[in-house]
Amino acid sequence: MDFPAPGPKSELEEGLRLTPRFGPDGLVTCVATDHETGELLMVAHMNRESLARTIETGEAWYWSRSRAELWHKGATSGQIQTVREMRIDCDQDAVWIRVSVAGDGGCCHTGRRSCFYRRVERASDGTPLLAV
Amino acid sequence: MDFPAPGPKSELEEGLRLTPRFGPDGLVTCVATDHETGELLMVAHMNRESLARTIETGEAWYWSRSRAELWHKGATSGQIQTVREMRIDCDQDAVWIRVSVAGDGGCCHTGRRSCFYRRVERASDGTPLLAV
Repeated sequence: MDFPAPGPKSELEEGLRLTPRFGPDGLVTCVATDHETGELLMVAHMNRESLARTIETGEAWYWSRSRAELWHKGATSGQIQTVREMRIDCDQDAVWIRVSVAGDGGCCHTGRRSCFYRRVERASDGTPLLAV
Repeated sequence: MDFPAPGPKSELEEGLRLTPRFGPDGLVTCVATDHETGELLMVAHMNRESLARTIETGEAWYWSRSRAELWHKGATSGQIQTVREMRIDCDQDAVWIRVSVAGDGGCCHTGRRSCFYRRVERASDGTPLLAV
């Protein structure tokens, strides 16, 4: 599967062709939420190949920036993400996938269900601090 | 407001200090969802100053990559985003803000409420196409 090059702004925003705008690093941002609850699970990245594989297989494939490799989410952990819906944003540089998570239902490598397990708050002196 | 440099992985993931990991471009990814409905509104970026201003003012400030400037969301459109909750992910390179949107409640520059107004589907020959 290949993706056509992005056209002019009007087509990018109003057209019905998927023409992803990969950044200088070859990536688009991908946001994964839980299909049932809507909870934000993770934010990751996809290159051309991982986006194509995600569309072709219906399972989430990312590009691991830290390992610099294609990453079939759940291949080792069992936490496969089945894509129930994929959406793209106005300028086609961000993808939103709504997923069902297999295995133990977790998503974060720390063992949590979501990667966003800490709130940003402020101490009385204004300093930001994190709360679980 | 300044942010301490990120510590070791254990502190980054389990610590209670906000030590954002800005990328080589000086940015973290920011996901904004509607505080009431949970709807994904937009994906944008924050540099050090926009993150600090967002925390200090309680309103969303982004870094516009296309205009290369600090961007107080809604300053011209009236679509100010008031931050009801901010969360950070495991490795502190992505921020999630849950917001209430002022003005007409819109978020996307195309006039839609959310930037993610198109679904990715597949034609009968497998080609991806977008549906509204």
